[in-house]
Amino acid sequence: MTKAGIKKLCEEAKDASRGLALIDTKTKNAAITAMGRALLKNAYCILRENNKDVINARKARLTAALIDRLTLNNKRLTSMADSLFEIAGLKDPVGSVIESVKRPNGLVIKKVRVPIGVILIIYESRPNVTSDCIGLCLKSSNAIILRGGSEAINSNIAIFDVLHKEAVKNNIPRGAIAIIRDTDRRVVDELLSQEGKIDLVIPRGGESLIREVSRKSRIPVIRHYKGVCHTYVDKTAFLPMAEDISFNAKVQRPGVCNAMETLLVDRTIAKKFLPRMISRFQDAGVEIRGSEEVRRIVKGVRLATEEDWYTEYLDLILSVRVVSGVDEAIKHIMKYGSYHSDAIVTRSKSNAEKFLREVDSACVYVNASTRFTDGNEFGKGAEMGISTDKIHARGPMGLEELTSYKYVIRGNGQVRK
Amino acid sequence: MTKAGIKKLCEEAKDASRGLALIDTKTKNAAITAMGRALLKNAYCILRENNKDVINARKARLTAALIDRLTLNNKRLTSMADSLFEIAGLKDPVGSVIESVKRPNGLVIKKVRVPIGVILIIYESRPNVTSDCIGLCLKSSNAIILRGGSEAINSNIAIFDVLHKEAVKNNIPRGAIAIIRDTDRRVVDELLSQEGKIDLVIPRGGESLIREVSRKSRIPVIRHYKGVCHTYVDKTAFLPMAEDISFNAKVQRPGVCNAMETLLVDRTIAKKFLPRMISRFQDAGVEIRGSEEVRRIVKGVRLATEEDWYTEYLDLILSVRVVSGVDEAIKHIMKYGSYHSDAIVTRSKSNAEKFLREVDSACVYVNASTRFTDGNEFGKGAEMGISTDKIHARGPMGLEELTSYKYVIRGNGQVRK
Repeated sequence: MTKAGIKKLCEEAKDASRGLALIDTKTKNAAITAMGRALLKNAYCILRENNKDVINARKARLTAALIDRLTLNNKRLTSMADSLFEIAGLKDPVGSVIESVKRPNGLVIKKVRVPIGVILIIYESRPNVTSDCIGLCLKSSNAIILRGGSEAINSNIAIFDVLHKEAVKNNIPRGAIAIIRDTDRRVVDELLSQEGKIDLVIPRGGESLIREVSRKSRIPVIRHYKGVCHTYVDKTAFLPMAEDISFNAKVQRPGVCNAMETLLVDRTIAKKFLPRMISRFQDAGVEIRGSEEVRRIVKGVRLATEEDWYTEYLDLILSVRVVSGVDEAIKHIMKYGSYHSDAIVTRSKSNAEKFLREVDSACVYVNASTRFTDGNEFGKGAEMGISTDKIHARGPMGLEELTSYKYVIRGNGQVRK
Repeated sequence: MTKAGIKKLCEEAKDASRGLALIDTKTKNAAITAMGRALLKNAYCILRENNKDVINARKARLTAALIDRLTLNNKRLTSMADSLFEIAGLKDPVGSVIESVKRPNGLVIKKVRVPIGVILIIYESRPNVTSDCIGLCLKSSNAIILRGGSEAINSNIAIFDVLHKEAVKNNIPRGAIAIIRDTDRRVVDELLSQEGKIDLVIPRGGESLIREVSRKSRIPVIRHYKGVCHTYVDKTAFLPMAEDISFNAKVQRPGVCNAMETLLVDRTIAKKFLPRMISRFQDAGVEIRGSEEVRRIVKGVRLATEEDWYTEYLDLILSVRVVSGVDEAIKHIMKYGSYHSDAIVTRSKSNAEKFLREVDSACVYVNASTRFTDGNEFGKGAEMGISTDKIHARGPMGLEELTSYKYVIRGNGQVRK
């Protein structure tokens, strides 16, 4: 793709975003619903293209986990369509009034949600990101430019073509949804220099991809680098609940950013809780790396290094530490964590509130698994990404997080004294 | 200032921000009120230090406008103290619940406002920015690092010392309010590299300062480059009101970002409106640069160049153009404007709504002067800056715009299926 071609695509997206901002909710919902139906109707063609990616992935000897993320089937396609139907059913954030104030001089000042403009998403493997992000951007009246990974290029293009055709048929500006078909890495560099045309960049994928995008971009970036998520089991915890929550947070899907990487346990209950818990983990194939104190309680556990506490394993590995209480747990999380999702299991109201207040993470939990940090689980239909930044959006980004606002001021001749 | 010294100051700010996030509203309000009183009590000392800056500015032959911005007196000090009292009286944004949802599985998910962390403000001339920003940051529980211009260094340090002493006396962590006393430019470069310690940079000042900060920073920046503000006089406008609003927007204080730079007039009323309006401007010493059509209506007006439409004069100069109606006005504003503040004067509800919807500026006005784009005028007590960005904050930034949020999730043992 030439530099001129990239520039033109971005300009068309910018133009389309202006039109998109003015389209009514009914038209957007009709388009999104039609797009969901089209996914199901074109399942055969999409799955055939997806199969090409899967075959290439096997040839390239990608890991089983990566191939699993890549693979579509009827069930997954149905779930992609369901996400679109759910997005169509959500409240349109555009135009909603965030706050309204009448000033002593009679001016009425309203803070009104508006779309951000043009959003570039750079992502890896999972083809459902293509339809989720198109749905979320369309509903929030943002133009979207998709740049997926080369390993899923056939799937992404197939999904895009089906959705784009349906969008245009339903009165959505042609340039509002665009995909980069060229997998050359230099295209990304060129895209990241389109300041003024692209308003926001969201990278989703491995830490190295995200760091590279952040370093190169002159456009604002919203991201999370990694998810070193913790569960702290307080001395007052109901231990069977603590066990189930910890097990779910680690084992249910270890390769994702909201999975637990470190388990912290109050000293008071460590001897009672850890042997059973660790043996349950080991039975599920989880490798345990423990602090000295953990190793004194459960024999044969490998010693965790300083490095381990900082590590996002994304795998069936867990670091475990005994702490003196909620304060030491918070201190550990603030030092080693990535401010993504952290949980306390407790029956103490004061320890719960302390944890919620003092742990400075995007999502803080009491008595639930960190695995819930997810747009769909939060009722947002899907997610555009998960942010551990503090500027603009934190946690799962749904429709509201894809908006900015403007001040609308109505007067009757007021001038400034 | 050494690199190590800068790093230490930033680390202390980060540490202090953690403590500040947990301080209750009453303590913050007491500190801010005491700081306002201290400003008044120490007026003599502050004015004496300010006088040094004014003498230096005269020696350096700064413009009268700059010296005016720099100069403090009892009235201005009183207004600075009043801003602090007003901030103390505003609602504390920290901890307020933005939204709350109960999911079908029983999880209660709350989106709760939290401070951003450490904010670096880089600003020029006006010493009141020092106290306004300290007040806003303290109330929103953000640590602040101030880097003012060398021309106001004595004033800024005097104000800072008075406020800092009072803050510490009132139980605010010592590191939560910091000032850079070294006016060496290299200190700014070093500050802009403190990613992870500083969370947000707000540059306030001339366009070249803002561009330089944006280019060098690895930390998110919120800014506005310039204010090319428009007033469009619709054919249905009540002309005496249009005249007063336009006159106020240009003349009341021409050197600020929310002053009007371009007047757009509907062709239908141009011959009736322009001669009187332009003569009133000229009587006030405003130089008019008009389109060909304006020059046919009012003789002796200088021709506006293409460059003029893009220019923020910050002076008694105004470009004037005749347009065919609201659509052409919007098109002009979107092409030449800076998305800061734009107004329509009209009695047509549909033209008003069209203008409000389609002009993609931070602040859009109907029948009022653009000069109201100001934190104080918006009821925010003061402002940390004005943003023309779309990410995080737009328009005047007050307390709420100085917060981020976290998701607080309460469960009773939920795990993900």
